[in-house]
Amino acid sequence: MTKQIVLKSRPVGVPTLKNFETKTVELSAIANGEVRLVAHTVSVDPYMRGRMSDAKSYVAPYSVGEAIAGGVVARVVESKSDSLKVGDYVMGMLPWQEEMVVPAAGLQVVDGNIAPLSYYLGVLGMPGLTAYFGLLDIGKPKAGETVVVSGAAGAVGMVVGQIAKIQGCRVVGIAGDDAKVNYLLNEMHFDAVINYKTTTNLDAALAEACPTGVDVYFDNVGGEISDSVVAQINKGARIIICGQISLYNETSVPMGPRIQPTILKRSALMQGFIVSNYAERFPEGFKALASWVTAGKLKYAQTTLKGFDKLPEAFIGLFEGKNTGKLLVEM
Amino acid sequence: MTKQIVLKSRPVGVPTLKNFETKTVELSAIANGEVRLVAHTVSVDPYMRGRMSDAKSYVAPYSVGEAIAGGVVARVVESKSDSLKVGDYVMGMLPWQEEMVVPAAGLQVVDGNIAPLSYYLGVLGMPGLTAYFGLLDIGKPKAGETVVVSGAAGAVGMVVGQIAKIQGCRVVGIAGDDAKVNYLLNEMHFDAVINYKTTTNLDAALAEACPTGVDVYFDNVGGEISDSVVAQINKGARIIICGQISLYNETSVPMGPRIQPTILKRSALMQGFIVSNYAERFPEGFKALASWVTAGKLKYAQTTLKGFDKLPEAFIGLFEGKNTGKLLVEM
Repeated sequence: MTKQIVLKSRPVGVPTLKNFETKTVELSAIANGEVRLVAHTVSVDPYMRGRMSDAKSYVAPYSVGEAIAGGVVARVVESKSDSLKVGDYVMGMLPWQEEMVVPAAGLQVVDGNIAPLSYYLGVLGMPGLTAYFGLLDIGKPKAGETVVVSGAAGAVGMVVGQIAKIQGCRVVGIAGDDAKVNYLLNEMHFDAVINYKTTTNLDAALAEACPTGVDVYFDNVGGEISDSVVAQINKGARIIICGQISLYNETSVPMGPRIQPTILKRSALMQGFIVSNYAERFPEGFKALASWVTAGKLKYAQTTLKGFDKLPEAFIGLFEGKNTGKLLVEM
Repeated sequence: MTKQIVLKSRPVGVPTLKNFETKTVELSAIANGEVRLVAHTVSVDPYMRGRMSDAKSYVAPYSVGEAIAGGVVARVVESKSDSLKVGDYVMGMLPWQEEMVVPAAGLQVVDGNIAPLSYYLGVLGMPGLTAYFGLLDIGKPKAGETVVVSGAAGAVGMVVGQIAKIQGCRVVGIAGDDAKVNYLLNEMHFDAVINYKTTTNLDAALAEACPTGVDVYFDNVGGEISDSVVAQINKGARIIICGQISLYNETSVPMGPRIQPTILKRSALMQGFIVSNYAERFPEGFKALASWVTAGKLKYAQTTLKGFDKLPEAFIGLFEGKNTGKLLVEM
């Protein structure tokens, strides 16, 4: 018997604890090619909000009554697979479940000697790869250009900013509290960081932080923050649409200023993406990220809650901007 | 002495005849390297509306009190240039003036034997090159894909649709009256054309015309028409922002549904451009367009008004959707 957390009902607007339910389920017997895992660290990510709705999106929705699934690092405690042995740590898209029996295929062995295990859910996992491919492949930042990133203190944003610094860019972050602002300035060496919640005039603050305009905008947030940034893009700017967390809990179609006239006048590019578009190039991205981490050029922050039962609370916290860096739940 | 048409005042909202004024001016003496020209055919184009405002845009604004300038085909009547002789026809960005003295440099000799002279302001000129580079370089349509073009009966739109047909695509046009719809269906062999003014449900009409969704959207119009199209784009769709004629006369910031969530969910690309971005490749584009025209694969429609004094009226007519194909004024 083991505990799992299921989607009890689809959230309308901001998710609440009532949308989740903890169940006790029986583990199936382990078959050939399968392993039994004990969860070690579980990731909560903004994109999961989309999977809780049944609207058409880029990933299939969760089913009501079934376990939530996402990135999990786990330890192998029993193996009927030639490729995995007891004691190995693996990462995969797995259910929110304390213990589980799953096929070994599709699991990635992770090495705690290269970096903390939790990094495989963050800077060396999906968030890091998202930052790497979105910024470099779509944004194509050139040394001396100005890169603005929203959600700058998030799991993706802080990697984006640091990679942009490595490329020789001026990096301007937008975040939601002063502790995050100071962290990004002092620990991650952003050139400027704006607290969008306390600034009285975001347009003016951006203009001051970007004296030569915005060449690349890596957008994790959307909404009014993006209105400000898009209004200040330069000719030939690239806008990477990675997330729109400010809009995920909207219950009606969000309205705003039309951006096509600006896209036209500035000959700008806007591109949406999901990291799995780059699956074939993950080894390249992992290698680069790991080399920057081990060289000390790429730092990473995490906010960790303790205990399986904290998962729903952790997930909801994403939308309150509580996390600096990757938000995780450790068992 | 010769007549010229100047911008008397900057239009607020829809331009009116009162924004223009006809003046009589003295011709300067012809210097070495210069030619004297008599205007033959003058182009009116939607982008000129932007130049009548003093807002920052991709082309410098016209000055109040000075001649409007745009694409003009003219005949050389006197030459102090080695490169041009009396009787040559040339095309250039020239003032709205019946007769003018200008430097020969910057003028392009045009050949009435390849195509009617007016084509150098249309299918073989800026509008044709705009369609060619926007569709092929940004849109990258593949055979079997569905291409939607707004402003389909305009100078650019009708070329876009026909090039997309040449590429083996399903082509769906959006236009504003039944004569245009029939013309595009019968003469230019579009697969479907929607009259957005008479359809009761544009979303449903588009869904019917695009049973496998929209892969490429070439947007000349913007506004609510684009809201409908963008909602039906496929994963990996490309949206080319070429014009936004429905918004050019707005006096406040146009509002609409935010499109970034759709761009994200569909991993779509949106790119604004101006044809001069492709100046180095104009010979390639001209060659392709001319070969399609002479092979009878690319037809072209024009609406021609007669008489220099008709220029302001012709320009204003662009925003009333009166023209099928290129709108021109012949002297």
